[in-house]
Amino acid sequence: MADYRAPLKDMQFAIRELAGLDRLRALPGLEDATDDLAEAILEQASALATGVIAPTNAVGDEQGTRVENGEVVVPAAFADAYRQYVDGGWAGVTAPPEHGGQGLPFLLGVAVEEMWCAANLAWSLCPLLTEGAVRAIEAHASPELKDRYLPKMVAGEWTGTMNLTEPQAGSDLAAIRTTAEPEGDHYRISGQKIYITWGDHGMTPNVIHLVLARLPGAPEGVRGISLFLVPKFLLDADGSPGERNGVRPVSVEHKLGIHGSPTCVMAFERAVGWLVGQPNAGLAAMFTMMNHARLGVGLEGVAIAERAYQQARAYARDRVQGTVPGHPGRAAIIKHADVRRMLFTMKAYIEAMRANAYVTAAGLDLAQRHPDAAERARHQARVDLMTPVVKGWSTEMGQVLTSLGVQVHGGMGYVEETGAAQHFRDARITTIYEGTTGIQANDLVGRKILRDRGAALAALVTDLRATEAELAPHAELATIRTAHADGCAAVEAAARWLAAHAGDSPATPGAASYHMLMLLGIVTGGWQLARSAVVAVRRLAEGATDADFYRAKILTAAFYAEQVIPQATAHLRALEAGADTLSALPDEQF
Amino acid sequence: MADYRAPLKDMQFAIRELAGLDRLRALPGLEDATDDLAEAILEQASALATGVIAPTNAVGDEQGTRVENGEVVVPAAFADAYRQYVDGGWAGVTAPPEHGGQGLPFLLGVAVEEMWCAANLAWSLCPLLTEGAVRAIEAHASPELKDRYLPKMVAGEWTGTMNLTEPQAGSDLAAIRTTAEPEGDHYRISGQKIYITWGDHGMTPNVIHLVLARLPGAPEGVRGISLFLVPKFLLDADGSPGERNGVRPVSVEHKLGIHGSPTCVMAFERAVGWLVGQPNAGLAAMFTMMNHARLGVGLEGVAIAERAYQQARAYARDRVQGTVPGHPGRAAIIKHADVRRMLFTMKAYIEAMRANAYVTAAGLDLAQRHPDAAERARHQARVDLMTPVVKGWSTEMGQVLTSLGVQVHGGMGYVEETGAAQHFRDARITTIYEGTTGIQANDLVGRKILRDRGAALAALVTDLRATEAELAPHAELATIRTAHADGCAAVEAAARWLAAHAGDSPATPGAASYHMLMLLGIVTGGWQLARSAVVAVRRLAEGATDADFYRAKILTAAFYAEQVIPQATAHLRALEAGADTLSALPDEQF
Repeated sequence: MADYRAPLKDMQFAIRELAGLDRLRALPGLEDATDDLAEAILEQASALATGVIAPTNAVGDEQGTRVENGEVVVPAAFADAYRQYVDGGWAGVTAPPEHGGQGLPFLLGVAVEEMWCAANLAWSLCPLLTEGAVRAIEAHASPELKDRYLPKMVAGEWTGTMNLTEPQAGSDLAAIRTTAEPEGDHYRISGQKIYITWGDHGMTPNVIHLVLARLPGAPEGVRGISLFLVPKFLLDADGSPGERNGVRPVSVEHKLGIHGSPTCVMAFERAVGWLVGQPNAGLAAMFTMMNHARLGVGLEGVAIAERAYQQARAYARDRVQGTVPGHPGRAAIIKHADVRRMLFTMKAYIEAMRANAYVTAAGLDLAQRHPDAAERARHQARVDLMTPVVKGWSTEMGQVLTSLGVQVHGGMGYVEETGAAQHFRDARITTIYEGTTGIQANDLVGRKILRDRGAALAALVTDLRATEAELAPHAELATIRTAHADGCAAVEAAARWLAAHAGDSPATPGAASYHMLMLLGIVTGGWQLARSAVVAVRRLAEGATDADFYRAKILTAAFYAEQVIPQATAHLRALEAGADTLSALPDEQF
Repeated sequence: MADYRAPLKDMQFAIRELAGLDRLRALPGLEDATDDLAEAILEQASALATGVIAPTNAVGDEQGTRVENGEVVVPAAFADAYRQYVDGGWAGVTAPPEHGGQGLPFLLGVAVEEMWCAANLAWSLCPLLTEGAVRAIEAHASPELKDRYLPKMVAGEWTGTMNLTEPQAGSDLAAIRTTAEPEGDHYRISGQKIYITWGDHGMTPNVIHLVLARLPGAPEGVRGISLFLVPKFLLDADGSPGERNGVRPVSVEHKLGIHGSPTCVMAFERAVGWLVGQPNAGLAAMFTMMNHARLGVGLEGVAIAERAYQQARAYARDRVQGTVPGHPGRAAIIKHADVRRMLFTMKAYIEAMRANAYVTAAGLDLAQRHPDAAERARHQARVDLMTPVVKGWSTEMGQVLTSLGVQVHGGMGYVEETGAAQHFRDARITTIYEGTTGIQANDLVGRKILRDRGAALAALVTDLRATEAELAPHAELATIRTAHADGCAAVEAAARWLAAHAGDSPATPGAASYHMLMLLGIVTGGWQLARSAVVAVRRLAEGATDADFYRAKILTAAFYAEQVIPQATAHLRALEAGADTLSALPDEQF
């Protein structure tokens, strides 16, 4: 059902006109990232996603995963899809050329990743985790470790995992108990980890685990955690997988969705591992993985919503039911105003969320490659600010939109064979893993807004207001401008409120945080659509051939302005209520 | 996990202080409905729900249903729970005494029903459908049919179903093709029906189907549909089930949730049936069932949210994770501000939704039993207005709240064994069956607001404003009053807008309808909480013993005022945008 030709045009628009691939071409190492290259890559990825990966989605959901003879068995169709993905060279798209990667911009990486996620979310987690592990190893590991592991991982020949959570610890990494005993040049890792995504499988000859553990005598809390590389199979002298290491999958979870993705309980029993980075600095190293992964999970919200939208739209065009005022005879349900409202809501949010994610990814390219240090810092601050927003808002909305996808189908949506329900089930994990929405919101308010006294947020507001000025000359964009100005004012008011009231009580930042995250998501998403409308007006004035597409861009921004932006003020009001009422209710009255 | 002692206090509060059981006691036939009786009934129902029905919920979800030897097999534990329900006399709680019912007010009926739904939604659909069938037969069938079928159905000895939908028709009853051929005193029914809830099972010796079909030469469309009673087993001369009739379950659907409830494809092959009501007047008769069922499904939204809340609250009190500013040591997650926000959101919505449903049920009692015809009409108009709001809003929010229930659990919520995910899956049907939210919204705007030129809505606004006046003398309720006044203003503005603009285009009422429904849900829910706060202030001034409960009532109204009511204005803005943008996007640009 997934057909990634449909959104290609919007993806290309976001890459070219909003995220600005041309800006990236000016960066060292990205000179070859032309529009033509981008188009070719997207076309090829779309063919693989549509023709090879998407057909494994429903079957993977049905078959699920299991542990057999000490190894995890995943749906059979997954291995072939993975093989084609590796053979096509997709694993190393954004990885550095010195380790065998193609060194393409993150901006193109996220566009390609969106297609894998939409095609099969459960499957796509395997490449996503591997990419994160590559990034952590590249940033923190010794040259020897890099040489031994990175080329295979960059190529996708071996996959990677991220072993954080323990049963007693949940999101609370301070409570980690897994131990690492020094032994010669390596360590012996012992402990149990839970919720390890793609913690084991037989699709590749090795699986490389990154594991948080404590050295003997390490300080309590998060400052006593170190990061270790623990391969499933120890490498022979020639670098090929040999003896099995002391790590094995104990069981897989029976989950609401992403059935094809093995979520493992992993047992480490004196497993041999190597330190990655400095002792007791594991958390920082892990955050290298997590920040990347958070942007990736935000993208999953976009992708799964897009998949649900494609299916709901196809159904709404086909399904004839009832009559519609103003239409002769019985009508396809896309003609029913409320069904149309649902579909347009999906379309508008998806385009807003996609643009937000792509623009943030381009910011990552600029933050890493810009020759000017001040520019790098400026872009990094924006990426840091927007990462929890992209993660939290896109995944929260991903759930709302996949639920609308079910609703468009009516009773058929509740029947599993239709497939709409799978997207709804799969999407439900995205606000939980890689840090719940609450954790994203705390990160946003605590680390990204209060810590720099609102500097990064103020810079964002300046950019938001600049777009308001760009809208001003265009009378046909008045609705969009008014709504965007309301959104800007809400962000400014929220920023002022936080600056003035964050210290009111210990609970205040936490109480305000969810609303701040949603407010920023709504307004920045609307900002990207407003920018789209300005571009569209310009292209139409230039006599663009695809006038219908550009007119639709303006209508989509208007729809979002009318239907979505008003919620920004609702979040502002809730935020301004502070924590008093929340804190006043005694625990026992819940 | 479900423990229906917890919400008993809130249920009794809603019955006594908001819905006004004392008003009902003044009605003929309800003189015995004392507070003590209500309390006793709720206690007994709570024991059955908690001790007998709730334990069948997870196992029913796992086992599901299947067709075997021409009969549907449901989870084994269901039959015993059903037997205890029948033996306890619960089936006929609100049914008329002349057919063996207890003739209690609907108000108590919904409170009891809420417990069955929360205990096991899949199971509870069997009694719910039976009750609806009883109501339709009572209102429309001949005395002979009533005598033969009602006593057994009222007692719960036989169950009832509602056969509307056909594969080609969906919600579009005009397209129904099932036929009814006259033959002596009866008819021969032939056709296929889908999505028939509890269409077959072996828990009782008979199943009584109400079936929509067409007589020979009947007019096209909904004016050519008649209603028939078709028993699974034809009755012998002594009234006991004898020969198998020509109706059988073909298959059951594989659904996202409510796995324990068989959703059947039913085949009618020259099945013997009897006409219920007048020829070609089947739709009106079916609406007798549907309106009752819609209120019941609205209640399901409350019930499943309550169940999810109980579970999330228990988890949040137990689960210790991380540290919280202002709390020493590691803290239970209920202390985390954002978790607390989610729990308080659940609590506030549930109490608002419950009160809305109960007040509407009391209105039904007044509409049916008030000695004064004008009063009956006045109450009926309110019930008619509020039924789609209770159905649509409570089920939409039921999904949001069960999703919050998952979120509070973090990763554990995504693991099926925890049980939080089942509520989320089960809840997803409630915005679809008995008319989707879009259908409720169209009913609200088209039949309930525009048709009487806003008269019923204006009467509601008068009542809303009266509560604002009651809030005014209490300085400590200022936040609640301000928010409630904002909500009232939003409803008034929406009413004015609809009156002025509904004719703007054929799509306008449909485009506005969802937002009108949500707006009315939010504001009427807040109205009930505002009324609660006024009562609580009075009780506190009187020196009520349970001061903590009443103080919590005021805080809950304040939380809702701060966090929820602001969304009313967002819905108003979206509504006022009309249908222009929605209609302007060409189908092919979706």
